[in-house]
Amino acid sequence: MSSLVSIDVEDYYKVLHPRPVYLIVSSCDGRTNVASIAWVSPVNDDPPVVALAINKDTLTSELISKSGVFTINVVDESKVSDVWVAGTVSGKEIDKVGKLGLKLIKSRTIDAPYIDGCLAYLGCKVIRSLEINGVNLYIAKVLEVYVRKNLFDPRYGWNLYRAKILMHSSGRCFTIPGKVIIHRM
Amino acid sequence: MSSLVSIDVEDYYKVLHPRPVYLIVSSCDGRTNVASIAWVSPVNDDPPVVALAINKDTLTSELISKSGVFTINVVDESKVSDVWVAGTVSGKEIDKVGKLGLKLIKSRTIDAPYIDGCLAYLGCKVIRSLEINGVNLYIAKVLEVYVRKNLFDPRYGWNLYRAKILMHSSGRCFTIPGKVIIHRM
Repeated sequence: MSSLVSIDVEDYYKVLHPRPVYLIVSSCDGRTNVASIAWVSPVNDDPPVVALAINKDTLTSELISKSGVFTINVVDESKVSDVWVAGTVSGKEIDKVGKLGLKLIKSRTIDAPYIDGCLAYLGCKVIRSLEINGVNLYIAKVLEVYVRKNLFDPRYGWNLYRAKILMHSSGRCFTIPGKVIIHRM
Repeated sequence: MSSLVSIDVEDYYKVLHPRPVYLIVSSCDGRTNVASIAWVSPVNDDPPVVALAINKDTLTSELISKSGVFTINVVDESKVSDVWVAGTVSGKEIDKVGKLGLKLIKSRTIDAPYIDGCLAYLGCKVIRSLEINGVNLYIAKVLEVYVRKNLFDPRYGWNLYRAKILMHSSGRCFTIPGKVIIHRM
């Protein structure tokens, strides 16, 4: 244990990064917002359920709580600038979709749009939510999934030689998947 | 949308990988178990709260539900073989800690041990749990955090040039962080 050091528990989340960071789109009553969120996790595969955590004072929380839906847009490193703005600017102050010039794609299933040019899209409907000290944890069913067919195989997942999925580490530091490791017994 | 294809919603979680995969240790009444879990997410930083999803029929679920504690052990690529076994063998059938010859480290705070040779350690105490169709979602407070001091800076997070944090993609495929991207405005 000699090379270990104790750190403030409030910094624990940096230890659980890098992790994929998504553009989350929410929409209600003609307002559409985009936020960058890495605090997302699969919860169940049958039925398909995902969890998403976000501060309850954000526009994203307001819109998701009202509409009950959101979309997860999986991005690659080409979107790092959009991710940075969507993650540091408040939708309550600025129309981020307009500012970033994002082209939206309508979903046939979900009343929230997708963002053009992403690697994959998940349309989600909230089935449960809980508040944990100022954070809303949304538990949502995944109703539809679209992927770039040349980058993803339903059986084997992402082709990591080609899909440069953006991950957030800390502050201005991001990364993408590196070496591919195939475990052989 | 022409290069996009719809996939089965049950495969959605593969779209949210790769993501860090952890060795999760649970312990109760003299039994200690280790499982590989990537379905973990930060939820809040103040107070520090994390969420972990796991099938309720596992030994890990049984032990966490009884003891109310678990540890998150952040691993690098050197542990891929342990991660594979801990993720594919049931603790109900085999003593995985013994089979893998894991050296356990006692925590001063949490009644569950850590695994020697990992990059970081988080000791967690469950504050809430919910069942979602056969999966237990544990919401837990992080009570202590230890990191390898030559790999992690509390302000800037992991040194990605040196910390080869293991991430699970799909099946036997894993990866580690690749290119470091510093976003400049």
